[in-house]
Amino acid sequence: MLGIHSRRLARGTAVALALLFGPVAVAQEVRREPVSDFTLANGLEVVVIPDRRAPVVTHMLWYKVGGSDEEPGKSGIAHFFEHLMFKGTKNAKPGEFSRRVAEIGGQENAFTSNDYTAYYQQVSPDALPDMMRYEADRMRNLILTDEVIVPERDVILEERASRVDSDPGGILAEEIDATLYQNHPYATPVIGWRHEIAQLNRKDATDFYDRYYAPNNAVLVVAGDVDAETVRKLAEDTYAKVPRGPDLPPRIRPVEPDQNTSRTVTLKDPRVGVPSFQKNWLVPSYSSAAREKLDGEPEALDLLTEILGGGIRSRLHQELVVKRGIASSAGAYYQGTTLDQTDVTLYGSPRGAATLAEVEAAVDAEVVKLIEGGVTEEELDRARNRFLRSLIFAADSQSGMARMYGSTLTTGGTIRDIDEWPDRIRKVTPEDIRNVAKKYLSPDTAVTGYLLPAGGNAG
Amino acid sequence: MLGIHSRRLARGTAVALALLFGPVAVAQEVRREPVSDFTLANGLEVVVIPDRRAPVVTHMLWYKVGGSDEEPGKSGIAHFFEHLMFKGTKNAKPGEFSRRVAEIGGQENAFTSNDYTAYYQQVSPDALPDMMRYEADRMRNLILTDEVIVPERDVILEERASRVDSDPGGILAEEIDATLYQNHPYATPVIGWRHEIAQLNRKDATDFYDRYYAPNNAVLVVAGDVDAETVRKLAEDTYAKVPRGPDLPPRIRPVEPDQNTSRTVTLKDPRVGVPSFQKNWLVPSYSSAAREKLDGEPEALDLLTEILGGGIRSRLHQELVVKRGIASSAGAYYQGTTLDQTDVTLYGSPRGAATLAEVEAAVDAEVVKLIEGGVTEEELDRARNRFLRSLIFAADSQSGMARMYGSTLTTGGTIRDIDEWPDRIRKVTPEDIRNVAKKYLSPDTAVTGYLLPAGGNAG
Repeated sequence: MLGIHSRRLARGTAVALALLFGPVAVAQEVRREPVSDFTLANGLEVVVIPDRRAPVVTHMLWYKVGGSDEEPGKSGIAHFFEHLMFKGTKNAKPGEFSRRVAEIGGQENAFTSNDYTAYYQQVSPDALPDMMRYEADRMRNLILTDEVIVPERDVILEERASRVDSDPGGILAEEIDATLYQNHPYATPVIGWRHEIAQLNRKDATDFYDRYYAPNNAVLVVAGDVDAETVRKLAEDTYAKVPRGPDLPPRIRPVEPDQNTSRTVTLKDPRVGVPSFQKNWLVPSYSSAAREKLDGEPEALDLLTEILGGGIRSRLHQELVVKRGIASSAGAYYQGTTLDQTDVTLYGSPRGAATLAEVEAAVDAEVVKLIEGGVTEEELDRARNRFLRSLIFAADSQSGMARMYGSTLTTGGTIRDIDEWPDRIRKVTPEDIRNVAKKYLSPDTAVTGYLLPAGGNAG
Repeated sequence: MLGIHSRRLARGTAVALALLFGPVAVAQEVRREPVSDFTLANGLEVVVIPDRRAPVVTHMLWYKVGGSDEEPGKSGIAHFFEHLMFKGTKNAKPGEFSRRVAEIGGQENAFTSNDYTAYYQQVSPDALPDMMRYEADRMRNLILTDEVIVPERDVILEERASRVDSDPGGILAEEIDATLYQNHPYATPVIGWRHEIAQLNRKDATDFYDRYYAPNNAVLVVAGDVDAETVRKLAEDTYAKVPRGPDLPPRIRPVEPDQNTSRTVTLKDPRVGVPSFQKNWLVPSYSSAAREKLDGEPEALDLLTEILGGGIRSRLHQELVVKRGIASSAGAYYQGTTLDQTDVTLYGSPRGAATLAEVEAAVDAEVVKLIEGGVTEEELDRARNRFLRSLIFAADSQSGMARMYGSTLTTGGTIRDIDEWPDRIRKVTPEDIRNVAKKYLSPDTAVTGYLLPAGGNAG
């Protein structure tokens, strides 16, 4: 039920990622009615995305707070708080909201990323008023006692044990982030460092709640079989009654210094069967590029990673897996929907008698080839079409659409960014692709992670 | 005149380091009169170390604030503030204090570390009242206007350019720290990241001053041709008039998570002639060991690094430089006087036809040999004697003694720690040495830095 959106993704999920996170607005191919956007007097932004194909609504409340807004030493409080939101309020018993969703055959979920925390339910339209009432209630009325908090902390520690500490890939991913980010809080895992989770307490929780859980720090996204006027009226009856919270300063976080070194992070673990590597570089996100006037770079990075490693048509897959047969997997991904700078990742794993070093060298060679030789218009067009198609597919999902709007609006983007985005993707040229590859994918600044069997060697 | 104490030291300065920073109290061999320690009503701790050999006094004021007490995004403010302390006050023109020191033939200096900031003058005893008056004055009466601050920021940026940005070793050292420390603020350079220095402003400076520059957050150390009663009387006339500042919370900083990976940091630069490497591991400091009940480990680490790499009698020097002739330098150091955990560093650089990889392998082999074979009582005794002799030498310097007391008392240590320390060094056994080597110097958690000529290769 509860989840974490790590910036670092499981391999091969580049497409799933684009579905979930990409600032997508190929909605013109899918949508029937326009998206509405309005703001309540208490500061809550409301987005309504009509989708009449089935009697279903997706109700998502997004808070503009995530793991990277935590104070130093308090890692994990954003995700911990996500769990606490399922406890009781002054008006609802613990678990009552979840039971109500289950009774009516609905689904619910919640997730925390570095940049946002979101809660959602998918239900029939007649249950929407109830969902809004419950969600508005827990925005302000949670009961946060030690009896609630202390046992939940053990649940979180257990979650960390099973998701990270018992998974060599999870451990490595944390230390790669801690190495890649030298100054920015993306260095810190969303779930929190174990020893810091263990110290989180009632004061931390109430301080966090009072600071960040307020209508003026949230975005409500309602997608489905409902119209904007109905949502507005329901919102006036529910969310509008929640008082505005404190004015928060702009989300300006510590910025990365220049990266001057190449770095490696190696984990050897007896639980690892087949070795693998991943190579990461810091690159702009859509939001950071807008702030830094790096127009067009995120779009070029989206298509660069599509060409290099986006699925089975990509260069890396074709060359390493299909043609040479040295890799069981090889690919690339980029997640542009973050508030601050993000990373491009290339990855690979050997097959048969091939070594990890051979696979890495072959991946490096593909990067050099792209930087030196560029891409043709034809290859770019094919990649662009694949990419846009995957977005159309994403936009076809009601919850996918809701997630696109929520994640964009909580990471510094606007609805206009979403609307204009397909056109911006269409404008990317072969020269743009080559420029971002050359600018960012330097061996002198790569951070490479190696996951090796005990006794294994990366070289 | 102004300086930074980096935790990361230039190679070969292990002995100088011990002189400056080690919690040394071989004073019984040197001192004639006992050290006095008292606290003024406003919270200022005063230490007086009589030294009658010459008509000189060393007057040092230490503040319990350093680079690692800065807020995220404000790196460099502690060191910046050190510069600002040389500007004018309500009572003294800019530069007046420094001119006064120069006129009487004295010396002055100031330095900032991760954990403390200190100011000192060495003058004839008759000038001590003047020094105390000026130093007490600038504790509270600085004039901090934009006219003062903005030009000094440019001075700091220039200092950073010459000390770090134009020095490949300086750049590498910063990124090694940013890699070694995954969560603790020792990841951040004391001088500050360039882009953050450039943003520091008057509000940052006044906030920092008001919070940290107060008698209850400082230690006055006076060493030299003066007695405690005289110092006490002078302090009552000067420092005692400065009002107590805000009560500060304990200096509890974010703690490192488990380190599970080995990491490398590589800088290739055309300015590098001969390649070199250094290998670092997180280990306890004297203060962190006391908090974590790791009694005896810092003492064992001091002697382990003496045996492995403390000067020309050490194993690394004898084996790599003298016997095999493959290294131009090889050694080890450990700096135990930090508030939080610190690191052990081994280093080496090839000579002649030898490669860096050969030197690194030989250093690694010495670590394995020590872990597997241990050390003999005789080798330990010789190393211990060398180590204690270097401390006696350090204690023979008036400013060295003052620094020992100041650095210990501002990093969580006590005068008793200083007094007992030689006996604790005498108790270290061969088994203690082997245990800390085995516990901490694992290849699976080493962070290795490579400084290579452009086009060079670590392997």
